[in-house]
Amino acid sequence: MKAFVFHGPGQSAWEEVPDPAIKEPTDAVVRVDAVTICGTDLHILKGDVPEVQPGTILGHEAVGEIVEVGGDVRTVRPGDRVLVSCISSCGRCSYCREAMYGQCRGGGGWILGHLIDGTQAEYVRVPFADLSVHALPSTVDSKDAVLLADIFPTAYEVGVLNGRVRPGDTVAVVGAGPVGLAAITTAQLFAPERIVVVDLAPARLEAAKRLGADAVADAREAPEQLVADLTDGLGADVVMEAVGVPETFELCTRMVRPGGRVANIGVHGRPATLHLEELWIKNVTITTGLVDTHSTPTLLRMAAAGRLPTAQLVTHTFPLDRMAEAYDVFARAADTGALKVVLGGEQHEVAVRGA
Amino acid sequence: MKAFVFHGPGQSAWEEVPDPAIKEPTDAVVRVDAVTICGTDLHILKGDVPEVQPGTILGHEAVGEIVEVGGDVRTVRPGDRVLVSCISSCGRCSYCREAMYGQCRGGGGWILGHLIDGTQAEYVRVPFADLSVHALPSTVDSKDAVLLADIFPTAYEVGVLNGRVRPGDTVAVVGAGPVGLAAITTAQLFAPERIVVVDLAPARLEAAKRLGADAVADAREAPEQLVADLTDGLGADVVMEAVGVPETFELCTRMVRPGGRVANIGVHGRPATLHLEELWIKNVTITTGLVDTHSTPTLLRMAAAGRLPTAQLVTHTFPLDRMAEAYDVFARAADTGALKVVLGGEQHEVAVRGA
Repeated sequence: MKAFVFHGPGQSAWEEVPDPAIKEPTDAVVRVDAVTICGTDLHILKGDVPEVQPGTILGHEAVGEIVEVGGDVRTVRPGDRVLVSCISSCGRCSYCREAMYGQCRGGGGWILGHLIDGTQAEYVRVPFADLSVHALPSTVDSKDAVLLADIFPTAYEVGVLNGRVRPGDTVAVVGAGPVGLAAITTAQLFAPERIVVVDLAPARLEAAKRLGADAVADAREAPEQLVADLTDGLGADVVMEAVGVPETFELCTRMVRPGGRVANIGVHGRPATLHLEELWIKNVTITTGLVDTHSTPTLLRMAAAGRLPTAQLVTHTFPLDRMAEAYDVFARAADTGALKVVLGGEQHEVAVRGA
Repeated sequence: MKAFVFHGPGQSAWEEVPDPAIKEPTDAVVRVDAVTICGTDLHILKGDVPEVQPGTILGHEAVGEIVEVGGDVRTVRPGDRVLVSCISSCGRCSYCREAMYGQCRGGGGWILGHLIDGTQAEYVRVPFADLSVHALPSTVDSKDAVLLADIFPTAYEVGVLNGRVRPGDTVAVVGAGPVGLAAITTAQLFAPERIVVVDLAPARLEAAKRLGADAVADAREAPEQLVADLTDGLGADVVMEAVGVPETFELCTRMVRPGGRVANIGVHGRPATLHLEELWIKNVTITTGLVDTHSTPTLLRMAAAGRLPTAQLVTHTFPLDRMAEAYDVFARAADTGALKVVLGGEQHEVAVRGA
């Protein structure tokens, strides 16, 4: 088969590799229909995620069809159309038993395209298939569904649920990339009073407005003052960090009101300064998290009901074999205006047309 | 009357001052029976809390008897024996309406011995008396009750409740001063599996053991390793910071397990480093807070029922007029072994004996 293989920092290729096969009785092999590229994949290509070994197939998000299952798999069978979650779950460890699948200690967690071969391929082996794939209603397009493999549950769980958005809240989202935009979308499920979005790129702030932001601010122009002005000087009830650098995290801690919540979604490579000399007295809650994907079934139901504007986040589509070009467009987002790029999806389109 | 007056960094005296009087119809004047000294008072004396003006009477914890009330006070009257809370509450602002009294925007919050004259005096004016004092059962000794003005609700709300201690948890407490010891005590209300306590002083670690710590560790001897060894390498479910320096806060973030909670209780004067490059993926919750004292009625009921070992935290008692000596003993805790020093309490003792 063909797959997108990481060969060390700055080196990668869409190339011929051996087909995956069942290794454990809990595995499934999935024929990939649609995949997408995550900001984390770009970090891997830069060499920022050293545990990814050269020779690893990248990608942790996919929609496809089960073609083979191991002897212990009970809930899916060949022919089923499924969402492959970015998080695999053993289902048996102490963390999985509390639905904290991202922290799985039984061999799961974020492993696809990280510790084992991933989804940016024609076929992928998915461990712990019973708990790591989700059957898909035929009404949900593959290009939409693939956004539910990672960015929608990440924004919803790590941003909106950890941040405990409540009706009437002022919510600030720092970073209007794909995850920030998904946070804007899912924050609205809890009826906040307003959503204020901060970014550097005018195009992303425009996208934020289309998706429901009530006010937007350039990160260079004292966005904390805008939030203060909107909130009687108090600050936001909930601030979500969706960038992943110390400066934006520290901005979030300046934008939150006493008693408010800062939900960090960003993937960080460097420490931040926590101004405890100001924050100790402010009753602030700060949360971090890798997504658990416990919300994926809920989000799938909402997507099937047309309640998630997933398609609005997809700016570019490509056939699967134009992976290198898709990476280039996604990496140069500042020039290309790319939000999410999706590859593939034709198998489902053909099936629907044929039906 | 006599009172303990701050005259600028390093300067203070027990001296004659004018008696306080009712200024607002919501005020009460309390004749002080017992007071205590807080670590925060030492910070003020050092000049670390610049908003405290020279000439301010210190102290934010007291038990005493109401001698006069303003025309709008409804729930207490002269003759009532009350606990004066460290937090005053207007009861009307948006924060008070959510029981977040510490953040009161209507003129309350931590004001006694901070922005207005405090309790280390023979008499004290208490604003917003209806919501800022608590009637005391005669069965609770003044020397015990005064610990419920600040340190017990602080340890309970900012440490135990913010940290969401649950049955079976491994709880770590960093800092075994009075607030840390109160945290050890109140954490046990939620039946944790074990409490591990970290400090530098052997005498404080001994006190921690007497109050229920299951394991103790010297802060200089890799306490995170002890916690890891006790928890299958995972870390503590809840870690409470009860010191207030960056090093101990950072230790807490190394001791917490994935999915765990760090509850900061300490009063900080400097920023800390937050290692987001390690924590972003760990589903950690960090909380800060000034006490709200919403739990004070509950804690008073428990003290009346003999369920709080308040007396075990009191190492030294003095008459009220030996305030300067009490400060000296408290400030030199490393030499004197002082935990809490309490002044006064004789008025209640005389009343009980007379009854």
